[in-house]
Amino acid sequence: MIAQTPKPPYYAVIFTSLRTEGDNGYAEMSQRMDELAREQPGYLGIESARSGLGITVSYWDSLEAIQNWKRNSEHQMAQTYGRDKWYSQFRIRICKVEREYGRTNEE
Amino acid sequence: MIAQTPKPPYYAVIFTSLRTEGDNGYAEMSQRMDELAREQPGYLGIESARSGLGITVSYWDSLEAIQNWKRNSEHQMAQTYGRDKWYSQFRIRICKVEREYGRTNEE
Repeated sequence: MIAQTPKPPYYAVIFTSLRTEGDNGYAEMSQRMDELAREQPGYLGIESARSGLGITVSYWDSLEAIQNWKRNSEHQMAQTYGRDKWYSQFRIRICKVEREYGRTNEE
Repeated sequence: MIAQTPKPPYYAVIFTSLRTEGDNGYAEMSQRMDELAREQPGYLGIESARSGLGITVSYWDSLEAIQNWKRNSEHQMAQTYGRDKWYSQFRIRICKVEREYGRTNEE
Protein backbone atom coordinates (compact mmCIF):
# COMPACT_ATOMS: atom_id res chain seq x y z
CA MET A 1 0.00 0.00 0.00
CA ILE A 2 3.02 2.28 0.34
CA ALA A 3 4.02 3.03 -3.26
CA GLN A 4 7.33 1.57 -4.42
CA THR A 5 8.73 4.53 -6.29
CA PRO A 6 12.12 4.83 -8.04
CA LYS A 7 15.07 6.95 -6.95
CA PRO A 8 14.13 10.67 -7.18
CA PRO A 9 13.66 12.94 -8.97
CA TYR A 10 10.13 12.12 -10.08
CA TYR A 11 6.77 13.87 -9.66
CA ALA A 12 3.83 13.71 -7.24
CA VAL A 13 0.27 15.00 -7.46
CA ILE A 14 -1.17 15.63 -3.99
CA PHE A 15 -4.96 15.67 -4.23
CA THR A 16 -6.67 16.79 -1.00
CA SER A 17 -10.46 16.83 -0.79
CA LEU A 18 -13.56 17.10 1.35
CA ARG A 19 -16.54 15.07 0.11
CA THR A 20 -20.14 16.15 -0.22
CA GLU A 21 -22.90 14.04 1.42
CA GLY A 22 -23.93 10.78 -0.30
CA ASP A 23 -22.15 8.61 -2.84
CA ASN A 24 -23.63 9.99 -6.10
CA GLY A 25 -21.66 7.50 -8.19
CA TYR A 26 -18.38 8.38 -6.54
CA ALA A 27 -17.24 4.92 -5.37
CA GLU A 28 -17.57 3.33 -8.80
CA MET A 29 -15.88 6.19 -10.62
CA SER A 30 -13.14 6.40 -8.03
CA GLN A 31 -12.28 2.73 -8.56
CA ARG A 32 -12.38 3.15 -12.33
CA MET A 33 -10.05 6.17 -12.19
CA ASP A 34 -7.67 4.20 -9.99
CA GLU A 35 -7.54 1.40 -12.58
CA LEU A 36 -7.26 3.83 -15.49
CA ALA A 37 -4.43 5.80 -13.85
CA ARG A 38 -2.40 2.60 -13.50
CA GLU A 39 -2.59 2.09 -17.27
CA GLN A 40 -1.17 5.51 -18.13
CA PRO A 41 2.36 6.00 -19.46
CA GLY A 42 4.67 7.35 -16.76
CA TYR A 43 2.52 6.15 -13.85
CA LEU A 44 4.67 5.14 -10.85
CA GLY A 45 2.22 4.48 -8.02
CA ILE A 46 -0.63 5.76 -5.85
CA GLU A 47 -1.35 6.14 -2.14
CA SER A 48 -4.74 7.01 -0.71
CA ALA A 49 -6.35 7.60 2.70
CA ARG A 50 -9.53 9.23 3.96
CA SER A 51 -10.71 10.09 7.46
CA GLY A 52 -12.91 13.13 6.93
CA LEU A 53 -10.21 14.76 4.83
CA GLY A 54 -9.14 12.65 1.85
CA ILE A 55 -5.59 12.59 0.56
CA THR A 56 -4.55 10.80 -2.63
CA VAL A 57 -0.97 11.05 -3.84
CA SER A 58 -0.15 9.74 -7.31
CA TYR A 59 3.42 9.46 -8.56
CA TRP A 60 4.60 10.05 -12.13
CA ASP A 61 7.87 10.03 -14.03
CA SER A 62 7.41 13.46 -15.66
CA LEU A 63 5.25 16.58 -15.78
CA GLU A 64 4.21 15.48 -19.27
CA ALA A 65 2.78 12.23 -17.87
CA ILE A 66 0.75 14.25 -15.33
CA GLN A 67 -0.54 16.55 -18.07
CA ASN A 68 -1.51 13.61 -20.31
CA TRP A 69 -3.41 12.01 -17.44
CA LYS A 70 -5.19 15.29 -16.68
CA ARG A 71 -6.27 15.49 -20.35
CA ASN A 72 -7.48 11.87 -20.60
CA SER A 73 -11.08 12.12 -21.81
CA GLU A 74 -12.58 9.66 -19.31
CA HIS A 75 -10.64 11.36 -16.52
CA GLN A 76 -11.91 14.76 -17.67
CA MET A 77 -15.47 13.56 -17.25
CA ALA A 78 -14.59 12.42 -13.72
CA GLN A 79 -13.01 15.82 -13.00
CA THR A 80 -16.25 17.54 -14.02
CA TYR A 81 -18.33 15.27 -11.78
CA GLY A 82 -15.81 15.86 -8.98
CA ARG A 83 -16.19 19.62 -9.16
CA ASP A 84 -19.99 19.48 -9.59
CA LYS A 85 -21.05 16.63 -7.29
CA TRP A 86 -18.43 14.88 -5.17
CA TYR A 87 -16.16 17.47 -3.60
CA SER A 88 -17.17 20.46 -1.50
CA GLN A 89 -13.52 21.51 -1.45
CA PHE A 90 -10.40 20.23 -3.13
CA ARG A 91 -6.82 21.20 -3.73
CA ILE A 92 -4.32 19.81 -6.23
CA ARG A 93 -0.60 20.33 -5.80
CA ILE A 94 1.94 19.34 -8.45
CA CYS A 95 5.32 18.57 -6.87
CA LYS A 96 8.80 17.45 -7.79
CA VAL A 97 10.00 14.76 -5.37
CA GLU A 98 13.60 15.58 -4.56
CA ARG A 99 14.47 13.13 -1.77
CA GLU A 100 12.98 9.94 -0.39
CA TYR A 101 13.81 7.64 2.51
CA GLY A 102 12.12 5.28 4.95
CA ARG A 103 11.62 1.64 5.73
CA THR A 104 9.39 -0.63 3.70
CA ASN A 105 9.19 -4.40 3.41
CA GLU A 106 10.80 -4.38 -0.01
CA GLU A 107 14.10 -2.95 1.24
CA MET B 1 -8.70 21.01 7.14
CA ILE B 2 -7.34 21.64 3.65
CA ALA B 3 -4.17 23.65 4.25
CA GLN B 4 -4.22 27.26 3.06
CA THR B 5 -0.80 27.49 1.48
CA PRO B 6 0.78 30.45 -0.33
CA LYS B 7 1.48 30.74 -4.05
CA PRO B 8 4.12 28.12 -5.06
CA PRO B 9 6.98 27.44 -4.96
CA TYR B 10 7.14 26.04 -1.44
CA TYR B 11 7.93 22.59 -0.02
CA ALA B 12 5.98 19.53 1.08
CA VAL B 13 6.92 16.51 3.18
CA ILE B 14 4.75 13.50 2.30
CA PHE B 15 4.87 11.03 5.19
CA THR B 16 3.20 7.70 4.40
CA SER B 17 2.98 5.00 7.07
CA LEU B 18 1.51 1.73 8.22
CA ARG B 19 0.98 1.45 11.99
CA THR B 20 1.86 -1.42 14.29
CA GLU B 21 -0.84 -2.91 16.56
CA GLY B 22 -1.80 -0.97 19.71
CA ASP B 23 -1.36 2.68 20.66
CA ASN B 24 1.93 2.49 22.62
CA GLY B 25 1.83 6.21 23.36
CA TYR B 26 1.28 7.14 19.72
CA ALA B 27 -1.88 9.27 20.01
CA GLU B 28 -0.43 11.58 22.66
CA MET B 29 2.89 12.02 20.88
CA SER B 30 1.19 12.49 17.53
CA GLN B 31 -0.88 15.36 18.92
CA ARG B 32 2.18 16.90 20.57
CA MET B 33 4.17 16.74 17.31
CA ASP B 34 1.27 18.35 15.48
CA GLU B 35 1.30 21.26 17.95
CA LEU B 36 5.09 21.51 17.94
CA ALA B 37 5.28 21.54 14.12
CA ARG B 38 2.90 24.51 14.00
CA GLU B 39 5.33 26.52 16.17
CA GLN B 40 8.31 25.97 13.87
CA PRO B 41 9.71 28.75 11.65
CA GLY B 42 8.71 28.25 8.03
CA TYR B 43 5.68 26.04 8.83
CA LEU B 44 2.85 26.61 6.32
CA GLY B 45 0.26 23.93 7.12
CA ILE B 46 -0.52 20.26 7.59
CA GLU B 47 -3.02 17.74 6.18
CA SER B 48 -3.56 14.26 7.57
CA ALA B 49 -5.74 11.20 6.87
CA ARG B 50 -5.63 7.53 7.84
CA SER B 51 -7.67 4.55 6.63
CA GLY B 52 -5.25 1.65 7.05
CA LEU B 53 -2.55 3.59 5.25
CA GLY B 54 -1.75 6.93 6.90
CA ILE B 55 -0.76 9.99 4.89
CA THR B 56 0.40 13.23 6.50
CA VAL B 57 1.56 16.10 4.30
CA SER B 58 3.24 19.07 5.97
CA TYR B 59 4.06 22.25 4.07
CA TRP B 60 7.12 24.46 4.59
CA ASP B 61 8.58 27.61 3.09
CA SER B 62 12.08 26.16 2.52
CA LEU B 63 14.22 23.03 2.68
CA GLU B 64 16.03 24.66 5.62
CA ALA B 65 12.76 24.80 7.58
CA ILE B 66 12.21 21.08 6.91
CA GLN B 67 15.74 20.27 8.03
CA ASN B 68 15.38 22.32 11.21
CA TRP B 69 12.14 20.53 12.05
CA LYS B 70 13.75 17.15 11.41
CA ARG B 71 16.56 18.09 13.84
CA ASN B 72 14.27 19.41 16.59
CA SER B 73 15.24 17.41 19.70
CA GLU B 74 11.70 16.55 20.81
CA HIS B 75 10.84 15.56 17.25
CA GLN B 76 13.96 13.39 17.07
CA MET B 77 12.76 11.44 20.09
CA ALA B 78 9.40 10.94 18.34
CA GLN B 79 11.21 9.78 15.18
CA THR B 80 13.05 7.13 17.22
CA TYR B 81 9.80 5.90 18.80
CA GLY B 82 8.22 5.90 15.35
CA ARG B 83 10.88 3.65 13.88
CA ASP B 84 10.99 1.38 16.96
CA LYS B 85 7.35 1.13 18.04
CA TRP B 86 4.68 2.84 15.96
CA TYR B 87 5.33 2.17 12.29
CA SER B 88 5.80 -1.19 10.59
CA GLN B 89 6.57 0.65 7.36
CA PHE B 90 7.01 4.30 6.49
CA ARG B 91 8.20 6.47 3.64
CA ILE B 92 9.16 10.15 3.65
CA ARG B 93 9.28 12.17 0.45
CA ILE B 94 10.63 15.72 0.31
CA CYS B 95 9.03 17.66 -2.54
CA LYS B 96 9.03 21.07 -4.13
CA VAL B 97 5.47 22.21 -4.85
CA GLU B 98 5.52 23.80 -8.29
CA ARG B 99 1.82 24.40 -9.07
CA GLU B 100 -1.40 24.49 -7.06
CA TYR B 101 -5.06 24.90 -7.90
CA GLY B 102 -8.49 23.88 -6.67
CA ARG B 103 -11.54 25.18 -4.87
CA THR B 104 -11.62 25.91 -1.17
CA ASN B 105 -13.95 28.00 0.97
CA GLU B 106 -11.37 30.71 1.44
CA GLU B 107 -11.20 31.57 -2.24
